[in-house]
Amino acid sequence: MNIAAPNIENTGPFTRACGWHKLLPNKIVEMAKKIKKLGQDDPRRIIHSLKVGLALTLVSLFYYIQPLYDRIGENSIWVVITVILVFEFSVGATLGKGLNRMLATLSAGALGVGVHHLATLSGEKGEPIVLEFFVAMIAATVTFVRFLPTMKVRYDYGLLIFILTFSLVSVSGYREDKVLYMAHQRVTTIIMGSIIAIVTCICICHVWIGEELQDLIANNIEKLGNFLQGFGSEFFKISEDRQPLSDIAFIQGYKSLLTLKKNEETTVTNLARWEMWDYRFGLFHPWKQYVKIGTLTWQCAHKIEALNNYLNSEIRALNEFGRKIQKPSTKICSESGKALRELASAVKKMYQRTSVNAHIEKSKTAIENLKFMLDTYHFEDANLQEIIPSAEVALTLIDVVPCIVKIADAVQELASLAHFKTPATRVSP
Amino acid sequence: MNIAAPNIENTGPFTRACGWHKLLPNKIVEMAKKIKKLGQDDPRRIIHSLKVGLALTLVSLFYYIQPLYDRIGENSIWVVITVILVFEFSVGATLGKGLNRMLATLSAGALGVGVHHLATLSGEKGEPIVLEFFVAMIAATVTFVRFLPTMKVRYDYGLLIFILTFSLVSVSGYREDKVLYMAHQRVTTIIMGSIIAIVTCICICHVWIGEELQDLIANNIEKLGNFLQGFGSEFFKISEDRQPLSDIAFIQGYKSLLTLKKNEETTVTNLARWEMWDYRFGLFHPWKQYVKIGTLTWQCAHKIEALNNYLNSEIRALNEFGRKIQKPSTKICSESGKALRELASAVKKMYQRTSVNAHIEKSKTAIENLKFMLDTYHFEDANLQEIIPSAEVALTLIDVVPCIVKIADAVQELASLAHFKTPATRVSP
Repeated sequence: MNIAAPNIENTGPFTRACGWHKLLPNKIVEMAKKIKKLGQDDPRRIIHSLKVGLALTLVSLFYYIQPLYDRIGENSIWVVITVILVFEFSVGATLGKGLNRMLATLSAGALGVGVHHLATLSGEKGEPIVLEFFVAMIAATVTFVRFLPTMKVRYDYGLLIFILTFSLVSVSGYREDKVLYMAHQRVTTIIMGSIIAIVTCICICHVWIGEELQDLIANNIEKLGNFLQGFGSEFFKISEDRQPLSDIAFIQGYKSLLTLKKNEETTVTNLARWEMWDYRFGLFHPWKQYVKIGTLTWQCAHKIEALNNYLNSEIRALNEFGRKIQKPSTKICSESGKALRELASAVKKMYQRTSVNAHIEKSKTAIENLKFMLDTYHFEDANLQEIIPSAEVALTLIDVVPCIVKIADAVQELASLAHFKTPATRVSP
Repeated sequence: MNIAAPNIENTGPFTRACGWHKLLPNKIVEMAKKIKKLGQDDPRRIIHSLKVGLALTLVSLFYYIQPLYDRIGENSIWVVITVILVFEFSVGATLGKGLNRMLATLSAGALGVGVHHLATLSGEKGEPIVLEFFVAMIAATVTFVRFLPTMKVRYDYGLLIFILTFSLVSVSGYREDKVLYMAHQRVTTIIMGSIIAIVTCICICHVWIGEELQDLIANNIEKLGNFLQGFGSEFFKISEDRQPLSDIAFIQGYKSLLTLKKNEETTVTNLARWEMWDYRFGLFHPWKQYVKIGTLTWQCAHKIEALNNYLNSEIRALNEFGRKIQKPSTKICSESGKALRELASAVKKMYQRTSVNAHIEKSKTAIENLKFMLDTYHFEDANLQEIIPSAEVALTLIDVVPCIVKIADAVQELASLAHFKTPATRVSP
């Protein structure tokens, strides 16, 4: 784009206007390309947009069809508003918002009617004062509760809607005689809107965020495994056999792990917990365990950053010391890589994997060999700067295996909590 | 809490109910403690809650005072709703939401009136069809645009409100004769509500998120500097002089750096960009530069994780090799620590700091000395596992200085972009 853009700095206003005139089509083309890529990267985004359009079309029928309009009247607009505000990309997010909105409206509506009743008891002059007092007090209290981390994570939207509905019912109740009718209307329309949004979201090409989370966690473990396996075979290669580093897929995969946001799993997990009806996971799926596994994977990825750095550096393990430690190091890499890939497949397919322990045992044996070599190796006249890279690779590998054991334990815990199928049932087909 | 809780597992339903009965006061006390701590940690949260209550009280006067109610009528409720939805903790967030809401309502209102006019041209039967088509199409398009990362970051709320207002005006316009009046009412009430929220937020104990961001960035750089300075004096100490590690403040500070969310600065920066009226920063403050400095600090913190690990391990630099590299290593630590602390104070006070370069030059010289030692050190009969910790500390320190140079360059760029005061002007008082 930079090549196509004419230089519009340091020129007169007229020339500059011409410059913008020429730039504009470029900008539009660029924007169109971005939008196209967005759709290609994840076509479900297009489907989601169409679903929102469809839900709105459905819901605006309340306005166009006379019998429906007669029943709800102009409050139909709250059905439309609710659908727009509640409809989200994933089922979990939609359910979370919908349930929050319904519960908050219900409870705040009831409280609003109660406060309105209390206020009418205090006479015509006292009424606005009592109302003002309650609105200010409840709004301030609920706003403060929104700061509580446990509340913020799951009920922030609900608390906001609580303030909104309460103010709406109690304040506008001052001018309205039929407060109970108004509150009832609001609750009904919001429940209708939420249900329409949730049903549309689930019934048409649903996106279960729980499955996304499972894939995310499994893919990350797999990338780690691929990197370790790839590293073992690449680092100790002689120069001529090496591929250009930019071509190697396992390094790209590993790098994508490092750029992961540390709290991404937490956000996704909080949405997944709303998906109570996903047939694969059931009502009491241990979602928190995914956060634990995700954090351990992230820590492990950062621990082996040193390995990646040495892969990029010119000095590799070509010296005598490097050749000495090659065999146990490669063994550790391949065995722990296999263990990680088994773990990834266990998470993805919800099967128990018994072979993981065997791989871990083998890498532990390799570690003992490596430690013995490091202890007994004596070097004369060696250059420290040459030895350090290989030695650090060795020490990092010794450090990595306990990390992998932790991941394996966490996956094992998940497997028992979520009742993963045992290999015995897998033989049948 | 665990100690106080009676064991309520494996007991009959009656005993369990008694157990819960005993537990409940504990739960309430615990919750109360949490809420108290929340207020003590940041008293501005209490002030914010009271501000929301006050703004709502102000805005509900539209209902209670007859002359005001006569002007706006029952649409006053949109003023109340807008205040609740727009009012946020920081000025930046409130401005962002308020401007988004106002612009979106204005443009969507205009578009809605236009589409309604178009629909009425197509006859009584054609009208709902034309309306349905436009609502579905525009909702789907705007929903898709919300996926664009550049849009999502700053205009997500505005786009949502755009869909909302457009549907509201065009759909409910089908049953309303005075569409133009309705759209006008909606735009006016929302602008009023937004302005009330923004003014209350700015005028009473405002929280400028730009200043928070500046402090966040400066404190992180300072923590890094404290850690390096502290590390230099602690790592090469002999055993008897050492404090227990848990007591050392600089380690705690450093650890808090590691748990920082990588994208925290980006989120905060996007809010800070809305604060166009903060007198300290002005309209064109280079906020993006803070993200750059924050990322560099984060990378640097992760690079020196190895130093922290060795500080915790039993093996420290007590051997001959460790004593040999002590002098240049300590020099690097203290000089680069000083440089970082100067940089932190430059960011915080918006002054240029010329002494930074001197400190960096000194640490560069120390690096040359250290490198020379590593190159010339020859060791016979040394145990590799004993030497590695000190050697890795040395190599990490050699790696850290270029990182600090990058931070210094980024701060220098910020200083010139944001016109930081030069030291010359600082002499005057």
